[in-house]
Amino acid sequence: MGGAGLRGQSAGSTALCTVGKTGTGLTYRGYDITDLAHNAQFEEVAYLLLKGKLPTQAELDQYKATLKARRGLPDALKTVLEAIPASAHPMDVMRTGCSMLGNLDQETDFSQQADKADTLLAMLPAMICYWYRYSHDGERIDTASSEQDCTGGYFLEMLTGKTPSELHKQVMHCSLILYAEHEFNASTFTARVCASTLSDLHSCITAAIGSLRGPLHGGANEAAMAMIADWKTPDEAESHILSMLANKEKIMGFGHAIYRDSDPRNALIKEWARQLSDDADDGYFYAVSERVETVMKREKGLFANADFFHASAYHFMGIPTKLFTPIFVMSRVTGWAAHVFEQRENNRIIRPSADYIGPDHQDWLPIEQRR
Amino acid sequence: MGGAGLRGQSAGSTALCTVGKTGTGLTYRGYDITDLAHNAQFEEVAYLLLKGKLPTQAELDQYKATLKARRGLPDALKTVLEAIPASAHPMDVMRTGCSMLGNLDQETDFSQQADKADTLLAMLPAMICYWYRYSHDGERIDTASSEQDCTGGYFLEMLTGKTPSELHKQVMHCSLILYAEHEFNASTFTARVCASTLSDLHSCITAAIGSLRGPLHGGANEAAMAMIADWKTPDEAESHILSMLANKEKIMGFGHAIYRDSDPRNALIKEWARQLSDDADDGYFYAVSERVETVMKREKGLFANADFFHASAYHFMGIPTKLFTPIFVMSRVTGWAAHVFEQRENNRIIRPSADYIGPDHQDWLPIEQRR
Repeated sequence: MGGAGLRGQSAGSTALCTVGKTGTGLTYRGYDITDLAHNAQFEEVAYLLLKGKLPTQAELDQYKATLKARRGLPDALKTVLEAIPASAHPMDVMRTGCSMLGNLDQETDFSQQADKADTLLAMLPAMICYWYRYSHDGERIDTASSEQDCTGGYFLEMLTGKTPSELHKQVMHCSLILYAEHEFNASTFTARVCASTLSDLHSCITAAIGSLRGPLHGGANEAAMAMIADWKTPDEAESHILSMLANKEKIMGFGHAIYRDSDPRNALIKEWARQLSDDADDGYFYAVSERVETVMKREKGLFANADFFHASAYHFMGIPTKLFTPIFVMSRVTGWAAHVFEQRENNRIIRPSADYIGPDHQDWLPIEQRR
Repeated sequence: MGGAGLRGQSAGSTALCTVGKTGTGLTYRGYDITDLAHNAQFEEVAYLLLKGKLPTQAELDQYKATLKARRGLPDALKTVLEAIPASAHPMDVMRTGCSMLGNLDQETDFSQQADKADTLLAMLPAMICYWYRYSHDGERIDTASSEQDCTGGYFLEMLTGKTPSELHKQVMHCSLILYAEHEFNASTFTARVCASTLSDLHSCITAAIGSLRGPLHGGANEAAMAMIADWKTPDEAESHILSMLANKEKIMGFGHAIYRDSDPRNALIKEWARQLSDDADDGYFYAVSERVETVMKREKGLFANADFFHASAYHFMGIPTKLFTPIFVMSRVTGWAAHVFEQRENNRIIRPSADYIGPDHQDWLPIEQRR
């Protein structure tokens, strides 16, 4: 029997990613996450993951134009999004929107996979903004109307109705790059198990969204924001953290299942959170977050992971906390789809065994004799 | 590294099921599948899987009344089903309906899990029939109107608008019992990976539906029906099978990933298919199927699995071929939900490793230097 949760057990091969192995600890197709986060646009990284190489300028321009042209939502999909109440969990909205799209833009042959993935990449931000604005503000936004040519800028514009600043667009590029791919994490593995039955792409991505929804997986940046939301000063934060630790409460956004000493994504998003705090009304959240990081290191030896400074960074850009995990989806859909493609290339159905711990043979007992 | 597809690798423990180990090879909580299929109603088996024991008569009556009372679909769910075109894949409809229900009947705490599972069990047949009748016949059926007190009879009545015979109801009990549970198959494993992030029940079941949709998993009875659909006599069937074998074409409904000598479910559904054929207009499909079984055994040493005689049995009851896999969902939702409950009881996030087969470190290349 393998370790619980298949920890340390190989479940297949990948050419997409290494986690905790080389360089700063995270590479996409051999490129270090720091190089990508400092130099690339998100769409460049999406292209790298989905098409297998970094694009030329002409390829990138074409790719961004393709995505931009696919942001209009089919009427039937808008009908579905309008039927979802404002009280819904935004990840349930993403999951349902993705599943519905599968009815309208069905992948009937795997030769369509790259095209279907591009459409999902273009439409997922449109879906969540359409639902959010309709259910919360009563507005039917035209998701095809934006002139923003990048995913992050588009999302911010659709969400707020305002043209995002260059700084905000840069932060979104970095954030989406950091979340794009992470080897056989639980949601990606869900997508691969689903893909192994030779199911369609929308089933795989819908399934992955469902896994990412779980609080042990995708919800850590939301939980980190909820935690710090009431803390106004670093000292206040420190006393709360110390009492939480004394009560053995879980502090979200620290440590990692694979990384042992640090998460290479933390320094990258932290620097952007610092820059954003300069102009933010509640910029004190940065100092609060820094203190939490210091205390966690000092008291528990734990490092901040990718999620922790994402909380304040997203907050400084005016993003409602409950939309943090849907942003993760907009990004990770690239990694999920790339893993589905890879699974299909060299497939065997993923069907493990189980250790039986139930009762021995039970004799049938007619219903009138049961107690 | 484990075997491809984690074959033979334990991914956890279960008290729900053994496959290919004891008795006739398939047990649910220690009860042999033959005892269950000969003696139980489907709702008795659902109760066994979901609540942990066979019900008394009073408990079964109460359980069936509970399910019967929950068949009315929320208006927002009907809106979604009406937005899905007749050309959609019925499994995409099931997946989307289940996901949408998660927005309307959200599991906000695991203490609600049994209740949410019962609602899904009651509503999944209603969903597929509502969509099918609306998209194909333009009729808005009242899914709460049936007096049928069992899942199979209810499904047949909603689908056809006619009161099903006792024979048809008996066959559906057997069929739904045979499909209810099967240890760590790919869809159930998908549900458990999703559950391991502590996601909600609707995410887990939605993900599982997506996996069952794959032709390597849930579609075998549909494929078997499509194969025999044009064969009018056993001799015609034999000559087609022989030529398919000569061309190395895959024959659906034979052999199994775990069972080596026979599938214990085959004899059980085969006997019902034989009885149904007596009164069926195209009862010759039974003789055709029997010949295919004989030829496959003689030529390839392969046995018919649970799916093969399901094809003719469902066909004889007037069920459209494309709804065969959705029936599988109506049944297996019990096993999936029971596995989700079990995963939650003793959880560690399922996060395997991968063997890296990608490129070594790649130096960053500015976009203008790329070719």
